[in-house]
Amino acid sequence: MSFSVKSVRTVDQPISFFMQQAVENPRLISLAAGLVDYDSLPAHEVEEAVRQVLGDPRSAQVALQYGTTQGLSALRQVLLERTAALDRVTPAAMSLTPDDCLITTGSQQLLYLVSEALLDPGDLVITAAPSYFVYQGTLQSMGVRTLSVPQDADGMQTDALADLLAYVQRRGELPRLKLVYVVDYFDNPTGSTLSLPRRAHLLELVERYSRDHRLVLVEDAAYRELRYDGDDLPSIKSLDTRNAYVVLAMTFSKACAPGLKTGYAFVPRDLREPLLRLKGNHDFGSNNFTQHVVHRLVKSGAYDRHVAVLREVYRRKRDALCNALEQALEPGWRVRWARPAGGLYVWLRLPEWVETGPGSPLARAAWDEGVLYVPGQFCYLPEESKTVPRHEIRLSFGVGTPADLREGVMRLARACKKVLGAAAQDGCPTPLASLTRP
Amino acid sequence: MSFSVKSVRTVDQPISFFMQQAVENPRLISLAAGLVDYDSLPAHEVEEAVRQVLGDPRSAQVALQYGTTQGLSALRQVLLERTAALDRVTPAAMSLTPDDCLITTGSQQLLYLVSEALLDPGDLVITAAPSYFVYQGTLQSMGVRTLSVPQDADGMQTDALADLLAYVQRRGELPRLKLVYVVDYFDNPTGSTLSLPRRAHLLELVERYSRDHRLVLVEDAAYRELRYDGDDLPSIKSLDTRNAYVVLAMTFSKACAPGLKTGYAFVPRDLREPLLRLKGNHDFGSNNFTQHVVHRLVKSGAYDRHVAVLREVYRRKRDALCNALEQALEPGWRVRWARPAGGLYVWLRLPEWVETGPGSPLARAAWDEGVLYVPGQFCYLPEESKTVPRHEIRLSFGVGTPADLREGVMRLARACKKVLGAAAQDGCPTPLASLTRP
Repeated sequence: MSFSVKSVRTVDQPISFFMQQAVENPRLISLAAGLVDYDSLPAHEVEEAVRQVLGDPRSAQVALQYGTTQGLSALRQVLLERTAALDRVTPAAMSLTPDDCLITTGSQQLLYLVSEALLDPGDLVITAAPSYFVYQGTLQSMGVRTLSVPQDADGMQTDALADLLAYVQRRGELPRLKLVYVVDYFDNPTGSTLSLPRRAHLLELVERYSRDHRLVLVEDAAYRELRYDGDDLPSIKSLDTRNAYVVLAMTFSKACAPGLKTGYAFVPRDLREPLLRLKGNHDFGSNNFTQHVVHRLVKSGAYDRHVAVLREVYRRKRDALCNALEQALEPGWRVRWARPAGGLYVWLRLPEWVETGPGSPLARAAWDEGVLYVPGQFCYLPEESKTVPRHEIRLSFGVGTPADLREGVMRLARACKKVLGAAAQDGCPTPLASLTRP
Repeated sequence: MSFSVKSVRTVDQPISFFMQQAVENPRLISLAAGLVDYDSLPAHEVEEAVRQVLGDPRSAQVALQYGTTQGLSALRQVLLERTAALDRVTPAAMSLTPDDCLITTGSQQLLYLVSEALLDPGDLVITAAPSYFVYQGTLQSMGVRTLSVPQDADGMQTDALADLLAYVQRRGELPRLKLVYVVDYFDNPTGSTLSLPRRAHLLELVERYSRDHRLVLVEDAAYRELRYDGDDLPSIKSLDTRNAYVVLAMTFSKACAPGLKTGYAFVPRDLREPLLRLKGNHDFGSNNFTQHVVHRLVKSGAYDRHVAVLREVYRRKRDALCNALEQALEPGWRVRWARPAGGLYVWLRLPEWVETGPGSPLARAAWDEGVLYVPGQFCYLPEESKTVPRHEIRLSFGVGTPADLREGVMRLARACKKVLGAAAQDGCPTPLASLTRP
């Protein structure tokens, strides 16, 4: 067969291999999978919502018929109210109406559609480094060039972004720059949250460099509602008061149920029609039945109650994982990591000489011990004049029970011990502070 | 904003305007909408299936968690068995396993993914003329060139296809030809079904012209199970015994419920991985919850029972529409049409001088009478050296009640009377037989 250029560019997600391993080897504890907690999935709540939708003949008929490409109007209305309430502003203060909301097949479809609407091969996109690997795969598939901005505990370093934008401008490439992507609440993979000053700075930069054309800032807020400590931060979208620059992408996958595969987004006015036209060709509307079910969940308050439960569930799991890491990782190994205030991920930075990728001694030792993690290098795209770090690890506390998480960390620590011990015996550099990343 | 080349190429579906009109003007009877019958939507069956899925804690957890990109394995298994049974062969006789099945967000997503996997801008695709307009919009969006083959009562004229393929070869364009698309059961829009000899001929031609590379034949069988007269015909897929050429695209939207937005396809072995990689970027899997619900519907026999009910419902509706057409269309108007053996559509060919498009006297008269139809010209793509016919109409008996359908036809007949009468008074050509299409 003869495949399209795009198809040839589209590679398998490296994470697929790890998912497959986890499925095929039940002895393994997976700290790799991005799945969510099983026991707290809202079976009763969904069943009740379905009963409400299908119990009334009229609403059953509407839910089982075709919906619209943009998505259920009543759902878009309640999502707008809810999102504005999270940001403690009115919809009008963000220049938003339900018409600016789009329902998608998970937030991944939104990321795909926005990218498809804006990007031609050779265009430029800016992401954090590291960043969400599934979206990076999507960008690769589209043939665009990615530039990255480093992250720290406060998220994407916006000073570095300012430097990068100035560099892009000097090179005369601003016309090719279309999109900046950030996961600004409890980032996947690092767990970090973009600070409030940086939120404002990021938007200000996007505005300032919207010269040839308006840049689009995709704010991926998939984990926003899974906060375990501290207060919510305003979305960058809420600072974009004219609804001109920011796509706010949200999903029910993390804080409700991934099986419902329902995402939603608020998009700049100009982007709405192009997105709808593309979505018309993709599927002319996401699953309508599920949209009606989700609408009942939100409207009845069941969703809010569920989010409150999930926060407790995941706080315990985060603490189980992080407490185990505190106990099991020996200080001499110089592993750097931070307890995230929300989300599902913990990011470990090992000494630079400790490779974590497929086939590395650590990956082999972890396999032997029976634990899986995501090698950090999967969260970077290759970039001119930059080396992909190979000494990092993403751990997830989404799917494991607290006991699984503790046992997984013990196994990982034994693997670390083997590698660090063996390395010292083989004459490899000892893990001196000078070799670790700042 | 600066949009991608593809986005700029992606135009609004003209049908959107008609859908909108139907929604905004309840006085109108829509014979245009491709929606399905409301009263027969399987609310109780879906509710029962949901109860089975969510009633058991284990199956609830699996259904509400992430699924896989390819789709629920148990569902793919029963769909394979069911499809083979329809064709009265074994899966092995088609060289098919559940691994060759892909679950999609309706069959539209399958059409999109297959097109994206195969087509670069400038490539060639062959469709029937007229053909399904949503897919035509998708092809336009992808920047490909379409060539068309006329249809008659037995579907796509494969002798004309043979001539066209020879022409493409003579022009040295075979390397750019990737895909042939056919709706072979109760076509949307014409209602015609591809005859058995033509099925074999079509596959034979696709094989014969697979020289530079293998051509892909997309067999869109969305309406297959909605047959009201006569016996089922074997799918072209069942003739493709090595699973090399044919994508068989199916859906639960027509014979079950469009709100469930679940399609499925059996694809040639080589196409599987490219499709999965693309789908990984689109959404990494369609709605998992609904897949579990659909699996219960099929497994329990509820789906089969529902299809049997639907056949009765739509047979009555087809007859209501067609009997009204027989009574209301005056022979002197020379409107040609055929009673379809299944599906949801009736295709009317008016005399060539009677335009049916937006703004035409007939369209205005129909609007005044309060009835909507789809102008046939929407079902053609512009093509070099061919004129788009402007005298045809697609009627649908999907959504209206029998009484609606009868009233809609009366209104349409009054509109025809006005136009044909007025034309004669204005000195326009009288509708002589010599002016009508053969």
